[in-house]
Amino acid sequence: MTHRADNQLFDAYFTAPAMREVFSDHGRLQGMLDFEAALARAEASVGLVPHTAVPAIEAACKAERYDTRALAEAIATAGNSAIPLVKALGKVVASGVPEAERYVHLGATSQDAMDTGLVLQLRDALDLVEADLVKLADTLARQALQHADTPMVGRTWLQHATPVTLGMKLAGVLGALTRHRQRLKELRPRLLCLQFGGASGSLAALGSKALPVAEALAEQLKLSLPEQPWHTHRDRLVEFASVLGLVAGSLGKFGRDVSLLMQTEAGELFEPSAPGKGGSSTMPHKRNPVGAAVLIGAATRVPGLIATLFSAMPQEHERSLGLWHAEWETLPDICCLVSGALRQAQVIAEGMQVDAERMRRNLDLTQGLVLAEAVSIVLAQRLGRDRAHHLLEQCCQRAVAEQRHLRAVLGDEPQVSAELSAEELDRLLDPAHYLGQARVWVARAVADHQRLTA
Amino acid sequence: MTHRADNQLFDAYFTAPAMREVFSDHGRLQGMLDFEAALARAEASVGLVPHTAVPAIEAACKAERYDTRALAEAIATAGNSAIPLVKALGKVVASGVPEAERYVHLGATSQDAMDTGLVLQLRDALDLVEADLVKLADTLARQALQHADTPMVGRTWLQHATPVTLGMKLAGVLGALTRHRQRLKELRPRLLCLQFGGASGSLAALGSKALPVAEALAEQLKLSLPEQPWHTHRDRLVEFASVLGLVAGSLGKFGRDVSLLMQTEAGELFEPSAPGKGGSSTMPHKRNPVGAAVLIGAATRVPGLIATLFSAMPQEHERSLGLWHAEWETLPDICCLVSGALRQAQVIAEGMQVDAERMRRNLDLTQGLVLAEAVSIVLAQRLGRDRAHHLLEQCCQRAVAEQRHLRAVLGDEPQVSAELSAEELDRLLDPAHYLGQARVWVARAVADHQRLTA
Amino acid sequence: MTHRADNQLFDAYFTAPAMREVFSDHGRLQGMLDFEAALARAEASVGLVPHTAVPAIEAACKAERYDTRALAEAIATAGNSAIPLVKALGKVVASGVPEAERYVHLGATSQDAMDTGLVLQLRDALDLVEADLVKLADTLARQALQHADTPMVGRTWLQHATPVTLGMKLAGVLGALTRHRQRLKELRPRLLCLQFGGASGSLAALGSKALPVAEALAEQLKLSLPEQPWHTHRDRLVEFASVLGLVAGSLGKFGRDVSLLMQTEAGELFEPSAPGKGGSSTMPHKRNPVGAAVLIGAATRVPGLIATLFSAMPQEHERSLGLWHAEWETLPDICCLVSGALRQAQVIAEGMQVDAERMRRNLDLTQGLVLAEAVSIVLAQRLGRDRAHHLLEQCCQRAVAEQRHLRAVLGDEPQVSAELSAEELDRLLDPAHYLGQARVWVARAVADHQRLTA
Amino acid sequence: MTHRADNQLFDAYFTAPAMREVFSDHGRLQGMLDFEAALARAEASVGLVPHTAVPAIEAACKAERYDTRALAEAIATAGNSAIPLVKALGKVVASGVPEAERYVHLGATSQDAMDTGLVLQLRDALDLVEADLVKLADTLARQALQHADTPMVGRTWLQHATPVTLGMKLAGVLGALTRHRQRLKELRPRLLCLQFGGASGSLAALGSKALPVAEALAEQLKLSLPEQPWHTHRDRLVEFASVLGLVAGSLGKFGRDVSLLMQTEAGELFEPSAPGKGGSSTMPHKRNPVGAAVLIGAATRVPGLIATLFSAMPQEHERSLGLWHAEWETLPDICCLVSGALRQAQVIAEGMQVDAERMRRNLDLTQGLVLAEAVSIVLAQRLGRDRAHHLLEQCCQRAVAEQRHLRAVLGDEPQVSAELSAEELDRLLDPAHYLGQARVWVARAVADHQRLTA
Repeated sequence: MTHRADNQLFDAYFTAPAMREVFSDHGRLQGMLDFEAALARAEASVGLVPHTAVPAIEAACKAERYDTRALAEAIATAGNSAIPLVKALGKVVASGVPEAERYVHLGATSQDAMDTGLVLQLRDALDLVEADLVKLADTLARQALQHADTPMVGRTWLQHATPVTLGMKLAGVLGALTRHRQRLKELRPRLLCLQFGGASGSLAALGSKALPVAEALAEQLKLSLPEQPWHTHRDRLVEFASVLGLVAGSLGKFGRDVSLLMQTEAGELFEPSAPGKGGSSTMPHKRNPVGAAVLIGAATRVPGLIATLFSAMPQEHERSLGLWHAEWETLPDICCLVSGALRQAQVIAEGMQVDAERMRRNLDLTQGLVLAEAVSIVLAQRLGRDRAHHLLEQCCQRAVAEQRHLRAVLGDEPQVSAELSAEELDRLLDPAHYLGQARVWVARAVADHQRLTA
Repeated sequence: MTHRADNQLFDAYFTAPAMREVFSDHGRLQGMLDFEAALARAEASVGLVPHTAVPAIEAACKAERYDTRALAEAIATAGNSAIPLVKALGKVVASGVPEAERYVHLGATSQDAMDTGLVLQLRDALDLVEADLVKLADTLARQALQHADTPMVGRTWLQHATPVTLGMKLAGVLGALTRHRQRLKELRPRLLCLQFGGASGSLAALGSKALPVAEALAEQLKLSLPEQPWHTHRDRLVEFASVLGLVAGSLGKFGRDVSLLMQTEAGELFEPSAPGKGGSSTMPHKRNPVGAAVLIGAATRVPGLIATLFSAMPQEHERSLGLWHAEWETLPDICCLVSGALRQAQVIAEGMQVDAERMRRNLDLTQGLVLAEAVSIVLAQRLGRDRAHHLLEQCCQRAVAEQRHLRAVLGDEPQVSAELSAEELDRLLDPAHYLGQARVWVARAVADHQRLTA
Repeated sequence: MTHRADNQLFDAYFTAPAMREVFSDHGRLQGMLDFEAALARAEASVGLVPHTAVPAIEAACKAERYDTRALAEAIATAGNSAIPLVKALGKVVASGVPEAERYVHLGATSQDAMDTGLVLQLRDALDLVEADLVKLADTLARQALQHADTPMVGRTWLQHATPVTLGMKLAGVLGALTRHRQRLKELRPRLLCLQFGGASGSLAALGSKALPVAEALAEQLKLSLPEQPWHTHRDRLVEFASVLGLVAGSLGKFGRDVSLLMQTEAGELFEPSAPGKGGSSTMPHKRNPVGAAVLIGAATRVPGLIATLFSAMPQEHERSLGLWHAEWETLPDICCLVSGALRQAQVIAEGMQVDAERMRRNLDLTQGLVLAEAVSIVLAQRLGRDRAHHLLEQCCQRAVAEQRHLRAVLGDEPQVSAELSAEELDRLLDPAHYLGQARVWVARAVADHQRLTA
Repeated sequence: MTHRADNQLFDAYFTAPAMREVFSDHGRLQGMLDFEAALARAEASVGLVPHTAVPAIEAACKAERYDTRALAEAIATAGNSAIPLVKALGKVVASGVPEAERYVHLGATSQDAMDTGLVLQLRDALDLVEADLVKLADTLARQALQHADTPMVGRTWLQHATPVTLGMKLAGVLGALTRHRQRLKELRPRLLCLQFGGASGSLAALGSKALPVAEALAEQLKLSLPEQPWHTHRDRLVEFASVLGLVAGSLGKFGRDVSLLMQTEAGELFEPSAPGKGGSSTMPHKRNPVGAAVLIGAATRVPGLIATLFSAMPQEHERSLGLWHAEWETLPDICCLVSGALRQAQVIAEGMQVDAERMRRNLDLTQGLVLAEAVSIVLAQRLGRDRAHHLLEQCCQRAVAEQRHLRAVLGDEPQVSAELSAEELDRLLDPAHYLGQARVWVARAVADHQRLTA
């Protein structure tokens, strides 16, 4: 094997292949070429370009006809990717139908091609993300329902607290995904719009045909026509990146929780195992959270990339120098990282191995203390709040000091047994009876999900 | 004057007073206290709390009754602001109506109070931002229309390009603001929702009354009831921060452009002058862009703060340690910085001093070269595109080499004068005739603005 | 109590009071005033200013003589804090010794006063941080030595691995702190230098006296004289912020580990308890990691603030617009957050409660699996590496499947007992005999610490 | 041409090929393999591994023997790059000398290989950066000296101020580069150290041979032996990234200034032109700052990447999940972006085209106002400071109002001409006589540069 300066060693781990494909060199070139082909058709439709020239231009608008490395070198001189591509496109067209060459890129500026090409890529990216989100949300909804009655300990500030259910925990993630889908739905029409302004944005070179061309071009590409060109107003792109960042954040929370639950000390929930997965040569028993690492990793990397895009917003005048350049690799990187996180989240959500028995045992790790609140509430109704609270506090401290179960301490305490029977105490100290609205939260999150999907 | 460790020297410059007030210590406390008062009322409405206890609790829920410094010290021990406040609230209530004390904070957890209190503050912040955006957009719309026919040079990569108009430039900012307003409108119902879950989020302590209390509480506070508590799903907050970040970015672009146009070499547009504003003891002639500095400053600072909030999203389990804490000052800081930028942008938009004559002179700085495209297009129709392009290129180079105006070079060139009369040439080299869709863009941006405002 | 727009509710929790004092409004003003007083002395020393004028200027250079609120308002018009302060200083001087007024701020520009004032504040900040680091490192060194033989389970990817010691874990933090101290030592001479350039940086207004004044001024303030003014070269400041960020990161790692060890399931190490600390009204047994939250919070917030400072580096020409402004509150915020983290780290390091018994029990949670490596190595020498590895793998899997201790499984396995006696097996499965270089690492880290301190 | 998901379109523009090569897939693999080969030699040197096994291992430690794509797939299952590589290495060794296979990776953990491999790459990166910095600093020193007497207008807040020289402006960048070189020199010994700890960092698997192996391994790789392993203490890496960030920031400042000076309105300094460089199809006269865009772009992107590394510092226990992963592509990205910026800065510094005549004309754009300070100072000595200041202010305002040159206004003012002769006035209004310490600053910056280089 020979080597070249490839840099893809972590791609299969951190990125979904379909998204990587969208933002490959080929994808970038094809995006711009799709713009150029549609421009020729649009200009032909209003009579600016002879219809006979269109096929030659369309035939040349295939990314595989271009030498990526030569273009990469030319970009370093030209300062952007459209200038050399349009030049090369002109040559290819000229080599076929010489008189068609003059109609290439007519009235457009290089940023029109780059931005519209990018929007076409982003449409594919948006479709991929939305599809992944639906699939993941479906899976989480199913799992949340399935585990709606699986009690586990709640943990606040990493300390055991009153019980929750696994279903409720998963419903939390589901709820966030539903909101992300709603956000993507709302931003879609803003994002998927044409960039077409010519040299300084006025389309002056196209005279009175400018608006008809713009309308036909948008139509051709199935993009909306924005109120005006947006060469230096980048909020649409940054908004999309932000919502992807929210997705990354929610998945990071999911991954963080999974990794904590997989801790040897907790052992409540596991990523699906697979041959070779998470193995360690020296520690054969380990269950490494290989997927959670991707979720946490993406949630750690995406914020900095988003900050870059926000930092790059104050773009000067009619075309920015340097700030625009800062977007070119950053936005694709965000899409790719989020795609990888979505893929791993799907694997985890689908194949998670739940140890409900261990969850139940962990609920009892504090020997009943996490249910002190349940007892306290009932006692308060009978003894008054202060006396009940004080009494419980004493019993809890005694349980800790004597390393006994709270149930036993309470049973021995005359002030308690005067109010609560053994059966009542058993029931109050059973987590399954102290789950509050857990089922309701699951049902509501699932309903929101289904409403959006319908 | 005595001193204390105040830290407000730059507040008046970087922040709007109304927003600073929203996020003052007083505002924070009042937000939590409004939650506690509403909780008492809600619980009374479902019979959990006697109606007689409510007035005592309400009376105690006034921020001015609490010693901020003592609370600040207690926070350092308790780890959040609600624990000591609820404790102090209980004492105040008890000192008045002792039997009411037991109904304080019933079934809630400290994060319920902090988060809902924050949402109440954010509602005020959102109102302020929306009002400022409408006002600024109105002003920009007016200015864009007024300067719809004011030609100025377009600048791409900081180089002179074909003409634009000042109206078109302002319409670009207006368009972005309209989108931001639309975004805020869309997120408002997501953001303004109750946080209420109790210890681990299940509301178990309230038994079968939990949902009715939650509904009544949301109603009391005029917040929506979310599908479930969101103690560790923070996307609503981060989404709001992101849209504020988009506002900061757009205003940063506005400020950057203003500062560039104010350059001594450009001198096309100025911030309104005021006594003492931007003065320099050593250079009395200077017109310092004091407001633009705030716009650029906010656009530089907000991205890092947003990254912090995204980084803080992977919050563990049912309540996060440290990541939640990272939000407490960061989100208010973003609101305050954006409020300050909005205020300065309003001052600039309203009072901008336009030197249309200087714009016209600058348009001619390249001696006609920025209009070569206009000539090229007409010639192309007569001579063919290649020949026309080649001819123009030669003339442009000659104009540069001989330091003559392009009009003169073209007039002397027989190939050109064979095709274009002197009148035609004069017209083609007049920027006012090469403004393309500039008026259309202004009209469209203004129409979008009005549609949203109506 | 009346209220004003104070914003200090979390100061006591997130910030050390001494650092807050350094960066108070008073501290900022005094820094600039110290510059002005020293400038008068320096100029007097070279004969530019009459010696008689100096006392009047010095007397006026006391921060408490100025109305911070009035200055704050004036800053909003002037665009920086030195312009109004110098104006106010002039008035105060004039009101005392009118003829001294003309010698105020002679030849300096406002950024000279602001930057040098800032450097003086940073000197105090640096002293505070260094003192805190020494103290914390001393404490960690002591604790590392004390716990050099306290075995606990190693955790990689949150899974149990071969044993470590608590001493070794603490030595890791100590080692990082020693490097940070070394870094601060190296940057100190770069950071603590004068800013003095006058209007555009050339000191032209001072003619031939410029360099002597600069030298005397540096001498007066005990700052070094840089090779040239650095109004728009901000690397010194950003370098300092970066090293503070490294400190925040290391403390964040410490806090993260502490919080994980405090988990109810782990229970190996605790923050010192204190009355009211980390209490929960509903869960009296909890031990909330109130200090760790500050460490994690600072490590989450500082990176975004650092990014702001890096983003603000490309400052234009001789004085930047907006990027400079972005520094004014950001660098102090970093100093304050790090000071708070250092303080909490000290509390934890000093008072940490170690449950060595629980550590030992946790080491056995996997029933010996974490020591499989120890057996494997010895067996490899006798059976060959492949056979040994294979054999161990089988035994580990059997232990997991049968839920038995690895010691028992190994004892039952003839191939193993043929090679290893019961005593040997006992020894190999005792964590205390598999601690490798743990003591060496502690000794080396402590030695590095002492070398730097000496 | 076929396509694959390559993503290198902007590499030639944004990255230096040598740095891209260092961080190619090949470079990553070779780094780890160099560790493995050296480990075998080191262990042979202390008798842990038979000398006969070494050549077989060394022969297998060539990156070109491994299938990168297969490894990429395996990484997605294993969770890091060393696990599958070591497995593949074992197979290659076994296929040659079966009995040598058991000595592969003996006592090491996968992070030892990845981190030490990374350090070896970083050594190459550091060498490249230092070499580029020396070259760039040499060039800037030469240009600063050459233009030490080229006056140009100073610009503060983008407004004309008192004169500076081009040499002084370049010396500012030079000074920053010298400090960066000093910083790299200081961090080099900290950065270039071995990572070697085995499973949990204690090197227990190597028993009493651990330290000798570690010493021999460090020796083999010409790295220093750190006080202890640093698997979850990443300050060394982040420190390096920070200093690279400082470099990016300083170059961003350089690029920003160049782009502003290249503005059509300023036209004082240009990037070297080259065929096709910065051309525009529609505006043949443009001189696009193609290199400055890279400098500004890098300075915009690097801060977010640095924030990621700082955010990733709180790594849990003995090996982090997800935070470690977040480093893998981020640190290389920073190195590559900085390498590209250095390359473009060199091109600009070397070939910059200076229009000293235009600089002189721009100095007079305000018709003498930028030299009012010079007159003011002399008059102050004769009339008193207040009177002089007041007089000058009036003259300046008159000059502005009447659009006359300040020289003319002053000449007409009796109070001025009573004090200053025409010759004096001419001299005071000549920028060349008001350059203050500009030459001194250049000399000092060059001296510092030479001192470090010697």
